[in-house]
Amino acid sequence: MRLSSYFLPTLKNSPREADTISHRLMLRAGMIQQSSTGIYSWLPLGFKVLKRIEQIIREEQNAAGWNEMLMPTIQPAELWYKNNCYNDYGPEMLRITDRHKHNMLYGPTNEWQITDIFKKHIHSYKKLPSRLYHIQWKFRDEVRPRFGVMRGREFLMKDAYSFDIDRETAKINYNRQFMAYLRTFNRLGLKALPVNADSGLIGGKMNHEFVILADKGESEVFCQKDWLNADVNIDKFDYNENLQPVVDSYLKRYSATKARHDPVNCPIELGNLINLPCIEVGHIFYLGNKYSEPMGARVTCPNGRKKVVHMGSYGIGISRLVGAIVEAYNDKNGIVWPEKIAPFHLGLINLSVDDMTCRTASEDIYTKLCSAGVDILMDDSYYRPGVKLAIMDLIGLPWQIVVSPRHAVNKIVEIKNRRTGKREEISVEEVLTRFAPANQALT
Amino acid sequence: MRLSSYFLPTLKNSPREADTISHRLMLRAGMIQQSSTGIYSWLPLGFKVLKRIEQIIREEQNAAGWNEMLMPTIQPAELWYKNNCYNDYGPEMLRITDRHKHNMLYGPTNEWQITDIFKKHIHSYKKLPSRLYHIQWKFRDEVRPRFGVMRGREFLMKDAYSFDIDRETAKINYNRQFMAYLRTFNRLGLKALPVNADSGLIGGKMNHEFVILADKGESEVFCQKDWLNADVNIDKFDYNENLQPVVDSYLKRYSATKARHDPVNCPIELGNLINLPCIEVGHIFYLGNKYSEPMGARVTCPNGRKKVVHMGSYGIGISRLVGAIVEAYNDKNGIVWPEKIAPFHLGLINLSVDDMTCRTASEDIYTKLCSAGVDILMDDSYYRPGVKLAIMDLIGLPWQIVVSPRHAVNKIVEIKNRRTGKREEISVEEVLTRFAPANQALT
Repeated sequence: MRLSSYFLPTLKNSPREADTISHRLMLRAGMIQQSSTGIYSWLPLGFKVLKRIEQIIREEQNAAGWNEMLMPTIQPAELWYKNNCYNDYGPEMLRITDRHKHNMLYGPTNEWQITDIFKKHIHSYKKLPSRLYHIQWKFRDEVRPRFGVMRGREFLMKDAYSFDIDRETAKINYNRQFMAYLRTFNRLGLKALPVNADSGLIGGKMNHEFVILADKGESEVFCQKDWLNADVNIDKFDYNENLQPVVDSYLKRYSATKARHDPVNCPIELGNLINLPCIEVGHIFYLGNKYSEPMGARVTCPNGRKKVVHMGSYGIGISRLVGAIVEAYNDKNGIVWPEKIAPFHLGLINLSVDDMTCRTASEDIYTKLCSAGVDILMDDSYYRPGVKLAIMDLIGLPWQIVVSPRHAVNKIVEIKNRRTGKREEISVEEVLTRFAPANQALT
Repeated sequence: MRLSSYFLPTLKNSPREADTISHRLMLRAGMIQQSSTGIYSWLPLGFKVLKRIEQIIREEQNAAGWNEMLMPTIQPAELWYKNNCYNDYGPEMLRITDRHKHNMLYGPTNEWQITDIFKKHIHSYKKLPSRLYHIQWKFRDEVRPRFGVMRGREFLMKDAYSFDIDRETAKINYNRQFMAYLRTFNRLGLKALPVNADSGLIGGKMNHEFVILADKGESEVFCQKDWLNADVNIDKFDYNENLQPVVDSYLKRYSATKARHDPVNCPIELGNLINLPCIEVGHIFYLGNKYSEPMGARVTCPNGRKKVVHMGSYGIGISRLVGAIVEAYNDKNGIVWPEKIAPFHLGLINLSVDDMTCRTASEDIYTKLCSAGVDILMDDSYYRPGVKLAIMDLIGLPWQIVVSPRHAVNKIVEIKNRRTGKREEISVEEVLTRFAPANQALT
């Protein structure tokens, strides 16, 4: 992509409305723009990151055995009338009346709807387990949206669901998602750990939040001191094996969210207990029959009798993750993307676009890297050199290639690693072998 | 994918609520499920087709030079107050009041919002042309939703926008999209032709609908008899060339939508005029300054003066296209997907899952084709053979591989082309060379 034809409205100064580092940097890097309170447009750079994260989550959900589908954003209110949930949800639910005076709502979550779909089609134990997920925009009318996309009103979420014949098989699916979450966050470059949590409005009998530590986190985890030592670099494993021992190894240390933590009955002595600011990035629930019982989601068992199914629900806040990752990966000059979710793998900066030598070298590198499948942003703008370098640091691509008049005559460019700041002068030829190894797409 | 772990709730009988062939087939093939009137859940099979179409549209928009972004579904009502548009839109606009009593709406289209984004960031002619698009769910509260996903209320749309300094440069972008539409529909396997149309609520000074012919089309095109002979198999071309002559070659024959056609002043003599039922699948508009003038979207010109930009807007109904394609591609046994958008490239039917020879052969083919990157659905269910064959015809994958006890002992399978119905007996080895040529992913 050429910067001259890319919509990248970076800002030199921090917008006043931003209340966290990630919010400021996302606005300054031209990733998002506020549409109304807690609702954002994702400009091209932000959109690319959102899609990269979404794709990693999708791949891991598929690998864990879930089927992707898509439920609509607008749900009929009737789905929520069971157990008085429609009223209990309170003003966070965006209620809508359509032209025919039907009560509708913008889905804040999809447990009722997925149970409705399940019960219309699945009637026998032979079709279990059933595993479905979708990635869809949701709406919660927060009274005070803040932290940019981290606590927005319209937000993108992956929510998965499982249906099983009993508690034991439901636990198998719960464990699959538990492992899928460790793998997913690991691939995203995040150390996200499971924490015992409060089940809130979703309900259910067992649940874990996945949190990442962050100085300005809006939540708090109470845990024993060595909780942070848990190793999340899990190797390959087989989803069909018994995952309970691995899951247990993560849960053996005490941890609890603030809402869940009970100082009086905490089993950890005070000297060994710490509390840390964190950001919630995922939440998994074993729901039992909270939704299936009132909805009448039953299947025929081998003995011919009907049985209410056991459900699980598993969420990851995708748009919130973009903010959380920026909150975790930045320095004084801007964002520092982990390689796998960077919007472009590298930025090619032509410092002097009117210089024919620079232009020829830049175009040559650009063309060759593009055709090798490297996703690259070339700054071919007329900005001053200092501005160019500042913008490239701000948007935080993992690598920079700088083409300057001084070096271009000798077919030399400077490369810089954004994270380490380490610079090297290498030949144009070497750029190609370094960043576009034969037969290996980097992005 | 194994059918035993896939959520594919096919129906034997036609649901009563379905009013067109495509709606019936999409329900019977387990592609969609109605959530409320005109609002659907996309079950896994339908979702895959939706994504395939979306991806082809995305690739062609990118190739034409547009930047992908994403605007939210919920817009502030203020954006629509200009020119009284908020009131003029009528009850088709889904109006919402949030908890703080702000007027919001579920976007039926995004001209006002994109103009707002543009004007906040682009202030100089040097940044033009600007080309942005997004793929997002929209809502129009149709008084009578019908034809399944073809006239739904919540629908997925690609809408692109362009901003230019004057009418001439705006026309260049209009022509780019014109060509991108021909290419896109061509890749989707559709013969979609441009028609002079009424601009409706969007407005603007010039516009063309792209329509496909369909017996049960909800629209009508009036055209001269040889209009249908236009060749849409366009070869590669360069978007940077002057596209006007090519565009003109499509517009030289008379065509008009019913709303646009004026029988009194029609230049075509009656004997040469025909009218045909059709389905609208895309619509492109040259908007002039309809939105940019009231919004104050101006840029500084080379002479220092400010000038209102000229806009274009270009839509494709993605969810509607799924219905339109099923309407165009079916036979008495079910759907017949064009290869490029089929949810799976082939279906592997094990007719007798308890037969070890069949099972070994099926697993062998399945494993090898999967690792060769072929997207395949294996029916490993305990359904009766007749049911299996009927389901595979119904869901319309381009190829079927049938593994039966009679042939499996000799390492022979039967393959069937869904479109032609042609069958062949080939060896298991040949299956691999036929469907997974070395180093060539088929999907």
